[in-house]
Amino acid sequence: MPDAVILVLNAGSSSLKFAVFDATRPDSAILRGAVTRIGTPAAGVTLRMDGETSAPVLDGPVQDHHDALVRVLKTLSDQGITDRISVVGHRVAHGGPDCDCPLAVTPALLERLRDLVPLAPLHLPANIAGIEAVSARRPDIPQIACFDTAFHNQMPGVAQMTGLPLAMQSPELRRYGYHGLSYEYIVEALGRDWVDVASERIIVAHLGNGASLAAIRNGRSIDTTMGFSTISGVPMGTRSGDIDPGLLLHLQTDHGMSAEELGDLLETGAGLLGLSGVSRNMADLIDHHDPASADAIRYFCYHVRRHLVALTAPLEGIDRLVFTGGIGTNAAQVRSLVCAGLDYLGLKLDAVANEDNSRIISARSSRVVVEVRETDEESMIAAHVYRLCGTCADTVREAS
Amino acid sequence: MPDAVILVLNAGSSSLKFAVFDATRPDSAILRGAVTRIGTPAAGVTLRMDGETSAPVLDGPVQDHHDALVRVLKTLSDQGITDRISVVGHRVAHGGPDCDCPLAVTPALLERLRDLVPLAPLHLPANIAGIEAVSARRPDIPQIACFDTAFHNQMPGVAQMTGLPLAMQSPELRRYGYHGLSYEYIVEALGRDWVDVASERIIVAHLGNGASLAAIRNGRSIDTTMGFSTISGVPMGTRSGDIDPGLLLHLQTDHGMSAEELGDLLETGAGLLGLSGVSRNMADLIDHHDPASADAIRYFCYHVRRHLVALTAPLEGIDRLVFTGGIGTNAAQVRSLVCAGLDYLGLKLDAVANEDNSRIISARSSRVVVEVRETDEESMIAAHVYRLCGTCADTVREAS
Repeated sequence: MPDAVILVLNAGSSSLKFAVFDATRPDSAILRGAVTRIGTPAAGVTLRMDGETSAPVLDGPVQDHHDALVRVLKTLSDQGITDRISVVGHRVAHGGPDCDCPLAVTPALLERLRDLVPLAPLHLPANIAGIEAVSARRPDIPQIACFDTAFHNQMPGVAQMTGLPLAMQSPELRRYGYHGLSYEYIVEALGRDWVDVASERIIVAHLGNGASLAAIRNGRSIDTTMGFSTISGVPMGTRSGDIDPGLLLHLQTDHGMSAEELGDLLETGAGLLGLSGVSRNMADLIDHHDPASADAIRYFCYHVRRHLVALTAPLEGIDRLVFTGGIGTNAAQVRSLVCAGLDYLGLKLDAVANEDNSRIISARSSRVVVEVRETDEESMIAAHVYRLCGTCADTVREAS
Repeated sequence: MPDAVILVLNAGSSSLKFAVFDATRPDSAILRGAVTRIGTPAAGVTLRMDGETSAPVLDGPVQDHHDALVRVLKTLSDQGITDRISVVGHRVAHGGPDCDCPLAVTPALLERLRDLVPLAPLHLPANIAGIEAVSARRPDIPQIACFDTAFHNQMPGVAQMTGLPLAMQSPELRRYGYHGLSYEYIVEALGRDWVDVASERIIVAHLGNGASLAAIRNGRSIDTTMGFSTISGVPMGTRSGDIDPGLLLHLQTDHGMSAEELGDLLETGAGLLGLSGVSRNMADLIDHHDPASADAIRYFCYHVRRHLVALTAPLEGIDRLVFTGGIGTNAAQVRSLVCAGLDYLGLKLDAVANEDNSRIISARSSRVVVEVRETDEESMIAAHVYRLCGTCADTVREAS
């Protein structure tokens, strides 16, 4: 175990992933883990080290993200790691309108994040709780916030426009885009594999429980399917994706739904779960053979495909398509439905390679390279932390 | 003037267009006209006959569609036409979930249309008022309703899905699509010009004050950009087009807007008018050189282009693109921005032909044929009326 480590915290709405990296060489994680199902009786901590994943450790309730973090720190303490933490990197869902890089956590930044909560009400509170829990117990450890919106911050103006009338426009009400740390990781990983990121027209399909696609030119996002909110774009595990605005208003004015009910529905009761009535999980739906599950899969693939093709417009074509995220890396059937009939774009899958979840799944005759890649947000955060304060680890340890 | 004529009424939200066709040979209109700006002091009736358009006749207020229709009938009476009307065809915005063809107006149909008003609250009341005004004065004249949704009725199931959860799905809450009479006219006109509609992959961009695009295969709509409501899809003169559902909910929960205010805004205060703050009219915006008008044009073209490209996904390519509607036929700059950089789809404009609003505006080297065509909903309605009851004209006249 190295003397100084970077702790990475990646808080989702009901989970807290963590990873530990050597602070002097953060290229691969020493240890990873997760607290899952926060707020439910089934909450537990899993650890993964040297490729082995532990059974979930269940030793008491995990009410919220603060509890979850206490459990993570206890787990790390049991591994003799807590004293070695020199810096903590956080995935933070939203950085506001002007944020295009990671930032050191300061009281001013925390205040700013609290102001941004209305823009990301489901994710930012958990991110803030994580930062506060660390500073409450170890105010001496520096913390770095890495933002999911930052990678998209320089999208062209037209891709930032929401469609709201001029009189209602404000810097906050813009299209932001999310999953930025995942996209950035993929772009850097492509670069390490000698892909000419500067010249290729790349689309990354991040298809997990949350899902979005990004069009990448010169290594930068020029458009993405999620806009202002994390509900928008393609359908997801429990989120609706884009939906007819007139239908939403009709449900309120003619079916008596409130905006809050509708918000809950579109966030937690729609998407694969809502359409199938059975599960938010694509693998479950593929095993289920009822018509509603088949409809849910069909709807998901149809819209991913439509959005994928739409993103070729700002790119003026496509040279490479990368599938990532849990669905993107595992669901051959989804990739096959998304890519079928796209020969006219020069894109053709190799059916066998696709079934095998091979790295490269395009046919030899395909002009567009199609690949399957694991993303790694925690690695990207560790890399940002290292670049921003590679030496602060030593500074802090010397001071203490 | 022939003995028997078909009167076609095409009621929009603030206008009533009308046209008169020979009932035995309804291939071109004998006379056309419109009552514009209904409900405002500037309301007036214009007539067009033998290519000459009259100055607007202003002889009293036109409060609503009933008033407008009385004015139309008076105008036709002055031309000696009212006694010759053997059948009236109406454009009706919505036919409900199962409607795929024109229908004779009966009390049962009228009742059904009244039930459908919540699905098209801005258009159906005007359509119903038109039907009622005719039957109040001339109950002897048969009337035919031609539906804007009918052309899309057979879209594949997945294109009809709204994304609403299974538990909330109902036959009424589906994607319908609109501008069907315009699309159908274009398809028939292409067929008359020897285009092999059965084998080509065709996209029609109907860009007027209302705007949508349709993907047409085997002469039928397989997907379109407007869904459940006429707000959805591409941005329009005063309508928003698609907008992030999370943003709409944010405006309600954090900015205190009501669903009704939001509905009004997205219907009448958004789109080109809202974005520019100046005008709903594309020609005006092109003349204006301020940044907001430029943004409005850019936003409009960006989304038409994105939707156009997205529709190639279900079509699996594109062979022909037809621009129609007021913007589609007149705004060369819009067509140019929409089509720029689509060489990768085999689509390339001829800049000079485009500037000239020529019929064919694609370059010789373009695999995709791009054309500019006037649409004619009134002709399509007359054709439907003729096919449905070509002989009822005689029947009615003999009976009277």
